[in-house]
Amino acid sequence: MKYCIGIDIGGTTIKHGIFTENGELINKYELPTRCGENGKYIFSDIADGIRAKLAELQIELSDVIGAGMGIPGPVLADGYVNVCVNLGISSIYPGQELSRLLDGMEVKVSNDANVAALGELWQGAGKGKSSVCMVTLGTGVGGGIVINGKIVDGALGAGGEIGHICMNPMEEESCNCGGKGCLEQYASATGIARVARRMLASSGQDSELRKFENITAKDVCDLAKSGDELAYASLRKSMNLLGLALQHVSMCVDPEVFVIGGGVSKAGEFLTDMIEEEFVRYNKLTKTDYRRVLLAKLGNDAGIYGCAKMVL
Amino acid sequence: MKYCIGIDIGGTTIKHGIFTENGELINKYELPTRCGENGKYIFSDIADGIRAKLAELQIELSDVIGAGMGIPGPVLADGYVNVCVNLGISSIYPGQELSRLLDGMEVKVSNDANVAALGELWQGAGKGKSSVCMVTLGTGVGGGIVINGKIVDGALGAGGEIGHICMNPMEEESCNCGGKGCLEQYASATGIARVARRMLASSGQDSELRKFENITAKDVCDLAKSGDELAYASLRKSMNLLGLALQHVSMCVDPEVFVIGGGVSKAGEFLTDMIEEEFVRYNKLTKTDYRRVLLAKLGNDAGIYGCAKMVL
Repeated sequence: MKYCIGIDIGGTTIKHGIFTENGELINKYELPTRCGENGKYIFSDIADGIRAKLAELQIELSDVIGAGMGIPGPVLADGYVNVCVNLGISSIYPGQELSRLLDGMEVKVSNDANVAALGELWQGAGKGKSSVCMVTLGTGVGGGIVINGKIVDGALGAGGEIGHICMNPMEEESCNCGGKGCLEQYASATGIARVARRMLASSGQDSELRKFENITAKDVCDLAKSGDELAYASLRKSMNLLGLALQHVSMCVDPEVFVIGGGVSKAGEFLTDMIEEEFVRYNKLTKTDYRRVLLAKLGNDAGIYGCAKMVL
Repeated sequence: MKYCIGIDIGGTTIKHGIFTENGELINKYELPTRCGENGKYIFSDIADGIRAKLAELQIELSDVIGAGMGIPGPVLADGYVNVCVNLGISSIYPGQELSRLLDGMEVKVSNDANVAALGELWQGAGKGKSSVCMVTLGTGVGGGIVINGKIVDGALGAGGEIGHICMNPMEEESCNCGGKGCLEQYASATGIARVARRMLASSGQDSELRKFENITAKDVCDLAKSGDELAYASLRKSMNLLGLALQHVSMCVDPEVFVIGGGVSKAGEFLTDMIEEEFVRYNKLTKTDYRRVLLAKLGNDAGIYGCAKMVL
């Protein structure tokens, strides 16, 4: 039996998964991410952890085909990372670093949102499909695109950066990226709350939302579900922009399905139904007899699945 | 020496190019497109023409590696054409049809705008790059995306359909595709003229454009160049929407360069400078020290180049 390893590096923890070559997750564990001193311990921590875990599982290093790593920042197609603020690393080929520490094992690297998309395509909501666009609705809006089983990294590492599609050139507030009117400003968890706050401020309409001191995306989703009109209209506005952005993606790469993940997606099919409706409203060129907007299935494990798949 | 053949099928003519495997175009010719009787003569005309031309050039059929065909309509990744209104064909694998008539030669098929993008990437404005998004500004807005040398066909054949990105959900007039507010409605030759007509109607500003009975995109471009303020503002508005659409493409696939072709691109660098400015206005996530918006180089030959490249 041969194995492969998925390593999803986040700002606080590094998730590891040991997989059989058939895609079965046989063990997973986490390590804290030591970002200090320009992240100099990150790759040795990972290598030490892998050697210990393989010994525990009685797997030889030579029976591991390779490892994939997901990085929370832009990664060029050749695996180069210019700057990854979240980890403190810069001007580095992370794959080469880890490979050197694991006797030359093949190590592939991509952006964390991209590997999550690959994971969902391989063993999650997109299983059996050949292309997917995954959108992760969390603090920000992450995105990843996989075409014919291959991640679209982009010439400058911006492939699948759905969250920074400019949806409103008239916006006055700035996004973290320096742009104005990014999808993330309306459809992320913080964006959904922001759209609701703006709507409350500009309308005299009654709403349960007025009772909250700090409105969260969950409040907006819960109240929208329970029939609060203003909350529903506000969520609809956020998902309208997401649906329109998916139409843009569709006219670029025309993926077989869209997969929605991240904390906000806990609102379930109520949310994906709304996104599907808004997508179909704008997408007139391609009709399907199946739903194109699906809920993610792998949760926080999508990353390690996608990482492992990169080397298979 | 080995050869390959590019076949770009349009609604009125079929352009053919015979290439060496090194990418040198050694002969080109055209045949009329016989669209009648559900296009039943199209593939036999092509095969007869190729046999005659190869005989004339003293090339054996067995020295031809394969042929690529560009089709003016959606083509699925496996080469299937559901409907191609312009040619009268439907429910067909055009590659299999032609292959059968040429002793089983390998024949690949893709959409005409996609093959033009591949041609420009191979031997045109994108030579030496690995990814490109080509935009053809003609009667409509055609588009093609090539990533790592591979055409993005899309699950339903809508890959690279830049012209149908919905740029204005508030638009009241319909696009040919059934949508409203498609990029094509503002940035094609007809779109540029339409934006100018609207601007003339809604403004009392003086302009040379008022002297024309039927405004064309060329009139708008020429007058914008010569300093007519309204013509310049109108063209800027059209190119603003194109630049914003390219930002969307950038956040999906992040191509190394954009190549602008089609009749409108005869306006030259005056036009691509404007598109670059509008693109950079919105694209804050990725900075380059090189221009990303380039003029196409291969003109009407881009299609045959791209077709030939498909089989190399």
